[in-house]
Amino acid sequence: MIYADNAATTKMSETAIHTMTELMRDTWGNPSSLYTHGQIAKDALEQAREDIAAAIGAEPREILFTSGGSEADNQALRSIAALGRKQGKMHIISSAFEHHAILHTLEALKKEGFEITLLDVHEDGLVRPEEVAAAIREDTCLVTIMYANNEIGTIQPIREIGEICRCRNVIFHTDAVQAIGHLPVNVRTDHIDLLSASAHKFHGPKGVGFLYAKRGIRLTNLIEGGAQERGKRAGTENVPGIAAMAAALQEALEHMAENTEHQRRMRDKLIEGLNQIPHAALNGDAVHRLPGNVNFCFEGIEGESLLLLLDDRGIQASSGSACTSGSLDPSHVLLAIGRVHDVAHGSLRLSIGEDITEEQTEEIIRDVSEVVEYLRGFSPIWRDLKEGRKEYIL
Amino acid sequence: MIYADNAATTKMSETAIHTMTELMRDTWGNPSSLYTHGQIAKDALEQAREDIAAAIGAEPREILFTSGGSEADNQALRSIAALGRKQGKMHIISSAFEHHAILHTLEALKKEGFEITLLDVHEDGLVRPEEVAAAIREDTCLVTIMYANNEIGTIQPIREIGEICRCRNVIFHTDAVQAIGHLPVNVRTDHIDLLSASAHKFHGPKGVGFLYAKRGIRLTNLIEGGAQERGKRAGTENVPGIAAMAAALQEALEHMAENTEHQRRMRDKLIEGLNQIPHAALNGDAVHRLPGNVNFCFEGIEGESLLLLLDDRGIQASSGSACTSGSLDPSHVLLAIGRVHDVAHGSLRLSIGEDITEEQTEEIIRDVSEVVEYLRGFSPIWRDLKEGRKEYIL
Repeated sequence: MIYADNAATTKMSETAIHTMTELMRDTWGNPSSLYTHGQIAKDALEQAREDIAAAIGAEPREILFTSGGSEADNQALRSIAALGRKQGKMHIISSAFEHHAILHTLEALKKEGFEITLLDVHEDGLVRPEEVAAAIREDTCLVTIMYANNEIGTIQPIREIGEICRCRNVIFHTDAVQAIGHLPVNVRTDHIDLLSASAHKFHGPKGVGFLYAKRGIRLTNLIEGGAQERGKRAGTENVPGIAAMAAALQEALEHMAENTEHQRRMRDKLIEGLNQIPHAALNGDAVHRLPGNVNFCFEGIEGESLLLLLDDRGIQASSGSACTSGSLDPSHVLLAIGRVHDVAHGSLRLSIGEDITEEQTEEIIRDVSEVVEYLRGFSPIWRDLKEGRKEYIL
Repeated sequence: MIYADNAATTKMSETAIHTMTELMRDTWGNPSSLYTHGQIAKDALEQAREDIAAAIGAEPREILFTSGGSEADNQALRSIAALGRKQGKMHIISSAFEHHAILHTLEALKKEGFEITLLDVHEDGLVRPEEVAAAIREDTCLVTIMYANNEIGTIQPIREIGEICRCRNVIFHTDAVQAIGHLPVNVRTDHIDLLSASAHKFHGPKGVGFLYAKRGIRLTNLIEGGAQERGKRAGTENVPGIAAMAAALQEALEHMAENTEHQRRMRDKLIEGLNQIPHAALNGDAVHRLPGNVNFCFEGIEGESLLLLLDDRGIQASSGSACTSGSLDPSHVLLAIGRVHDVAHGSLRLSIGEDITEEQTEEIIRDVSEVVEYLRGFSPIWRDLKEGRKEYIL
């Protein structure tokens, strides 16, 4: 089996599983309890907070633990929207291809009276800092731009956007779910005010994530109740999960340089190989791109059939975000970079892991090429294209 | 060590740890993915949903997985409030000693224009069904009463309240965090419309819970984003945690009869023993009470010192809810049953596990008696009481 869907979720590392299991067995006390067993859990919780803060250049008190990236995104946007409402600033800037945790929250805020500007991401899948600058108004309370796109892997000019927001005194949030553990992220040098992350995207457990919020930014609760997390996120802390997330992140950072180099090489090999398929095109910029992301459109085929046939051959990949699979609509990300409906339907995302081998990339190229050819063999659209009744787009 | 704080959190069962570890290793795919590995995770998720639904007499589609009890409480209340607002019904009935996940959400709703009636829980810690009936108005959209109190363990007349709500056509929610896995709960026979539960209170993992919502009740999202959980709760599902929760619940149900009998016997032994301490009193009804809950007030002492000295002797207990520990305010639960501030400060909650032994209960009685006597030895309040400058309350 070749698992090439690491953007959807990753296999937990042995270190993370070990940490989790050990804490489930031995450090299961309630960290809010006064007695020794509770205080040991509290220590583990605060150690994880320190480690995670250090990993992104933040202070421990700036880290809030959540149940994952979606919750962190929701809380970040809701918090700044509440602040904006108080100050009469009800304009938010984002991009057209954000994750649905952002886009759907923005839709809800729109219904509540906010005005939303969604910036173009152009054909290369990159937001232009100058367009962020031009979109900022007197009443802009928030800019939220993802660090790296979850479908096409394009890495946004976060530092430049951060600088603009800092200068213009606008709060800047980034959904860094695809970046943390894969790219070096530093909230200070990148001028990030809020950042969302999810453990299961970097070989940590599912159901755990964190929200970084710069000191001084007042968060509002998404979940009301007990006084956990400085009163900003109620519910008994998932200490084993949080400690496992910290362990996974530290491990990812330790090996980031070598992992990135290897993944980039494998990624570029895949891109080169798949580019040999006729009427195929890479989605998103080839350079400003996550080291593990390959995303192609193939004219004349359905992405879903491609995935199922690749699965038969032991290759697990996706057509886009797992969160919206089952939907018949084409990816909003591919539409945002200008792919037309027909072409967007024939997409393939390969998000490779750190342990992928040269042989596996060759196997992927061979299998994808064969399956695309096979599917085109009985595709009416492909026949129309070949016989000139329709024009090729790619 | 004697762990007597199971109301704060429980040790995960070996079955739950085993399930979790196995799934973290083998069933870590994203359940929204089309390929085999994702579909295996999806199957595990839906199996857990079936098992949990069966455990409370619900249908699988009525179960929504959350990050815990607090999230479930928040989503339940927010959903029905949204419904109520639409119908012009902005009155909610609850009780004075609910968990803060309920009370703080109600406070937020009050600020948003809802009218909240908090019913008296009387000296015995029991809501009166007739008072629920009397409080229901034309504009009541929701009654939310906890199944069993987290501090004093009193079990509410849920079925009677449920019947009244059904007859009067008012939606009924119960925070059953302390009940699920410890009492036989059936949402059909109890006439419950919504119910919140948390895995770590019945030997499952932290960071996982569920919300039952009767078919036909429209939930609103607390967390927006992907289409998971029928579009009502975004975020990649924590499949290992959810499966471990289902395993823990099934295990709890299998052994419930014998566990309950044993715990009740140990509980009553503890109550009898601690009642020998002068000027001490059980908090809450002795009969309608969780099998594992003992909660006492001791006149003339500080609960915190009692806990620390018991910890030194290897007994881990609490003075009330862990969620608010660190706060200097006395428990709102004890105040709600009429305990005055001074007395409420000297409280001790022992929530015993299923595996407590006869010898351990004797050890607890001996240690608590000695520590209470020791603390009273240098308590100025106790001296005032003894020398008649103040009157005993208990």
